[in-house]
Amino acid sequence: MIGRFKHFGNTFYGEVNATCVTAKGEYEGKTFELSELKVLPPTDPSKIVCVGLNYRDHAKELNMDIPHEPIIFIKPPSAVIGHGDKIIYPEASKQVDYEAELAVVIGKRCRNIKAEHANDVIAGYTCFNDVTARDLQRQDGQWTRAKSFDTFAPVGPFIASPEDFNPENASIKSRINGELRQDSNTSNMIFGIPALIELISGIMTLEIGDIVTTGTPAGIGELHCGDVVEIEIEGIGILVNEVV
Amino acid sequence: MIGRFKHFGNTFYGEVNATCVTAKGEYEGKTFELSELKVLPPTDPSKIVCVGLNYRDHAKELNMDIPHEPIIFIKPPSAVIGHGDKIIYPEASKQVDYEAELAVVIGKRCRNIKAEHANDVIAGYTCFNDVTARDLQRQDGQWTRAKSFDTFAPVGPFIASPEDFNPENASIKSRINGELRQDSNTSNMIFGIPALIELISGIMTLEIGDIVTTGTPAGIGELHCGDVVEIEIEGIGILVNEVV
Repeated sequence: MIGRFKHFGNTFYGEVNATCVTAKGEYEGKTFELSELKVLPPTDPSKIVCVGLNYRDHAKELNMDIPHEPIIFIKPPSAVIGHGDKIIYPEASKQVDYEAELAVVIGKRCRNIKAEHANDVIAGYTCFNDVTARDLQRQDGQWTRAKSFDTFAPVGPFIASPEDFNPENASIKSRINGELRQDSNTSNMIFGIPALIELISGIMTLEIGDIVTTGTPAGIGELHCGDVVEIEIEGIGILVNEVV
Repeated sequence: MIGRFKHFGNTFYGEVNATCVTAKGEYEGKTFELSELKVLPPTDPSKIVCVGLNYRDHAKELNMDIPHEPIIFIKPPSAVIGHGDKIIYPEASKQVDYEAELAVVIGKRCRNIKAEHANDVIAGYTCFNDVTARDLQRQDGQWTRAKSFDTFAPVGPFIASPEDFNPENASIKSRINGELRQDSNTSNMIFGIPALIELISGIMTLEIGDIVTTGTPAGIGELHCGDVVEIEIEGIGILVNEVV
């Protein structure tokens, strides 16, 4: 597992083993206790490309037909926060929801990648919370405002490498204040990751570090100030953020 | 007028006077003929925030009510091209439209800017073409795919400073192969630039170089391969791109 960390003003990537972090790059070989470090978002994307409705259980919950094609939207880089950072509840909304998602981190600048070659451009996988002001989403019709507030893209804590993680069969859960809310498996996705990479890279160039998210399963619901939301994906870890 | 240029692999900003460019920064004081230089997009935005329906004449043309609030959407940085670059007509679409727009370039990292202070965060103004795959926009409902193809965000040629340009009363035109298609004035905007900056900076942090566009007037229409599209804004210049 790879993370990005800050230690007294220095920012670096490191390999995470349990509670121990071995630095890479400039700090190569130095080791730290995880507790000494500030965990940063594990990537610094130029864009975050998300898909709407992409879990069978979520489509069923909404009484919606399974879509023929994924609908995409973009969250701006300014919305990104990391593990342990706070989600700021905006004044403009009265209903802010969590959405647990598996996120793909792009490892290679690419365009027009066929599904069968999608694995060549994937650096790894992490947890993502597609925080959404549901009332503004309904009101606007377009989803951009509802999904673009600062802090509405928690990502992390770390990136699991493709060697260590099977994105086609991993449990995905969310919890609010310890209470289980979403409990599904990535095998319930309608469009798999290779198909999403083919679709999205057919529209736009993906850059190193960009995030492609894969939709949320059934069980979405509201956040309130003071809530602690956890997104857990088997084989990756738990992304924890408090709402303030 | 400020532009960004490339000369034998070196990239720099320069002050443009007629056909003469005086370099800034590393190349301070060096002068070039404009014809010796490759014109780059004048900014390198982390995001492009656009608004839907924002001209009275365009709302009238579409028989739509004037909206109570601007609807925003985002184009990714990967869509940006400069003056003289080519717009690539994607295979996925059968109807690609031009949309002439006045773009604001942000000059200061900012959040929650009130309309009366909006001028403090504006670096300048430039021309923008919100190229849109109209058929995909209709089909998807969400506008992101239709507006996010590579090359769908031509911007430039140069940035006019707030001292030299009045965004509240400038003629805005588009031409296809020399034929006038859009001919309006920025005074026909429904929501003015200060109101747009207040709205958008109330949602997300704007970074230096980010682009906020302001909607298109009446007269939008289709592009075809081989067309040359010009966006002209009085006091800024002409953004020219060929469709291939």
